[in-house]
Amino acid sequence: MKKVLIIGGDGYLGWPTAMYLSKKNYKILLIDNFSKRNIEMENSIKPLFEIETMLNRVDVWNSLNKKNKIKFEFGDLLNHRFVYEHLRKFKPDHIIHYGEQPSAPYSMAGRTQAVFTQSNNIIGNMNLIFGVKKICPNAHILKLGTMGAYGTPNIKIEEGFIKIRHKGRTDTMQYPMKPHSYYHCSKVADSVNMYFASRVWNLRVTDLNQGVVYGIETKETSKDERLNTSFHYDHIFGTVLNRFIVQAAINKPLTVYGSGNQTRTFLNINDTLQCIELAIKNPAKKGEYKVRNQFTETFSVYELAKLTQSAAKKVGINLEINLIKNPRVELEKHYYNPTNKSFLKIGLKPIKLTTEYIQQNIKRILNSNVKIDKKIIDPKIKWEK
Amino acid sequence: MKKVLIIGGDGYLGWPTAMYLSKKNYKILLIDNFSKRNIEMENSIKPLFEIETMLNRVDVWNSLNKKNKIKFEFGDLLNHRFVYEHLRKFKPDHIIHYGEQPSAPYSMAGRTQAVFTQSNNIIGNMNLIFGVKKICPNAHILKLGTMGAYGTPNIKIEEGFIKIRHKGRTDTMQYPMKPHSYYHCSKVADSVNMYFASRVWNLRVTDLNQGVVYGIETKETSKDERLNTSFHYDHIFGTVLNRFIVQAAINKPLTVYGSGNQTRTFLNINDTLQCIELAIKNPAKKGEYKVRNQFTETFSVYELAKLTQSAAKKVGINLEINLIKNPRVELEKHYYNPTNKSFLKIGLKPIKLTTEYIQQNIKRILNSNVKIDKKIIDPKIKWEK
Repeated sequence: MKKVLIIGGDGYLGWPTAMYLSKKNYKILLIDNFSKRNIEMENSIKPLFEIETMLNRVDVWNSLNKKNKIKFEFGDLLNHRFVYEHLRKFKPDHIIHYGEQPSAPYSMAGRTQAVFTQSNNIIGNMNLIFGVKKICPNAHILKLGTMGAYGTPNIKIEEGFIKIRHKGRTDTMQYPMKPHSYYHCSKVADSVNMYFASRVWNLRVTDLNQGVVYGIETKETSKDERLNTSFHYDHIFGTVLNRFIVQAAINKPLTVYGSGNQTRTFLNINDTLQCIELAIKNPAKKGEYKVRNQFTETFSVYELAKLTQSAAKKVGINLEINLIKNPRVELEKHYYNPTNKSFLKIGLKPIKLTTEYIQQNIKRILNSNVKIDKKIIDPKIKWEK
Repeated sequence: MKKVLIIGGDGYLGWPTAMYLSKKNYKILLIDNFSKRNIEMENSIKPLFEIETMLNRVDVWNSLNKKNKIKFEFGDLLNHRFVYEHLRKFKPDHIIHYGEQPSAPYSMAGRTQAVFTQSNNIIGNMNLIFGVKKICPNAHILKLGTMGAYGTPNIKIEEGFIKIRHKGRTDTMQYPMKPHSYYHCSKVADSVNMYFASRVWNLRVTDLNQGVVYGIETKETSKDERLNTSFHYDHIFGTVLNRFIVQAAINKPLTVYGSGNQTRTFLNINDTLQCIELAIKNPAKKGEYKVRNQFTETFSVYELAKLTQSAAKKVGINLEINLIKNPRVELEKHYYNPTNKSFLKIGLKPIKLTTEYIQQNIKRILNSNVKIDKKIIDPKIKWEK
């Protein structure tokens, strides 16, 4: 039985990944420092559906799956002794590293938040690198990166590397990054460190540059409401389509930042699970730094607003679309052509976004009796001040 | 009178820069946290020539230059209140940011040192960015970077950016980096953050990707031995030619790492001063992130050993050259073609390295009665362990 350590096991993706891989017969250890729950408190935001304490959700899952129980340990990547201890005890075959502060707006809120983001992400990642090198140098690290690190270049976005012809000579080099926020800058630094560690210490690293994830449920979360994952619709952790779905459910105008022509990559939360499993089954070799772009489709923000509007109409809600002043500094008109061929090559079957899927998510909210806090949806953090 | 804040004013380059610019009629404030002196203690190493306490060297300089006194404040970039306070009080026109842990071997000594290097450099730099944005957004930041961040690509090394033609389309993008150590990785992260800040907050940033500096004296340090700069010949801070000069003076074999075919960029310490002045006189515009490669020549390590051997011969010393096992992980045979045209364009007159110059530096050591600690020269830190 292969062993998978999931760092950030309390998160929107960490928790569903844990249940999914546990079902697929991987032995799972989760660690988390609850940094996201802390940022929620700090900013008076909550996930849409109630989230159990970590021990309760683990207990519920384990009572349904007595043969392959998940374990959880509380602790912080910044504490290298904690990291080393659990690498030693658990001896993972794969390490899925979701354990980073994931919000771009949070990282732009001020110096304290930017510094927290960069030191949490970069130094936590360094402690992991040193731990793996020292204790389990054959373990395969799957680090979650982001498509946002590439920015919106005027050429095709390749996967991590690009062959450059320049003045009659050629080299294959790391694809130039142009991150959108201090959060995205931290992910670039992580990639630089991980690539270096793979070259110098022969580590096995897969860097997953993930697009924007949407969706409320996975097969596992829907088994019991105590297994919910932390779906966010607020201005800090709420990604665009998830926010639109909630705005639709309460019949509030969809707030599009700027012209909405910003185009990004997206994937269904269930495809995150599919991709992670594929990346585990096709691991990086010793000394290899493998980059995979983890997304299925591209949409402009405005296209997503129109799709949400159509979906809402089918459940009897007439939605307005409001173009509001863009709180971010980003190109609103740009070329965008990223590839995801490395996942397609190893068997990814994308779940395409449909109005039916959006409709189903809106209904899921309408049929629950969740409390939606309207105050936390509109953007409060500006890139320029 | 233009005001220049020099961060890392106690260092090999910071201190000579302070005196040089003070002579040129800039008003100077130095800050330093003595992190380098701490690392010296930690590793039982000392600079070749005795270094006065900071207040003594400042007093000696000021007694010779009563009209334009240098000021010094002790403090740490990691303490943002200290940074903000002095930006507020001093209101700099230019900020020269030398204040980072500068040793590649130190950053490879272990987790503690790697984490110190990255958090000191990256977070210190972040505090500076936030301080400038908040307090003096028109100040021109000159950040010391390193040519080592580029690595040794198989194409020409441009200055910070490269025009990439890819599948029929074109974009000008950040030049891909391939750093040699966790120290160099920290410099890449700094550049990513600085470029982002210039784009989003309209800051004025010059990133100086400097080569390896050599030389014992500048016009100002040679005025009084109490004005010495901290010249290092040890395995941590001693750069290659400076180490060779000391090995020559004690008639010990020159230790070349590996084949010695590794080629790097170099410049005379006096050219660092010239470049800094040129970069100040030709500042980045608002919102511009200007990259200048700061070096004058390229040499292979073996070429430098041969030059040192010839120079030593002229003062009657017959030197051996020992090829020792390379403690670093680096390509020993590679293409290397970096440009420094942006400095040549604004008037850099390079001081070329000659055997006479090496000879003169060897004699400078022979004629002094410094104690040379032979134990601290050979490499002790290995990239792979």
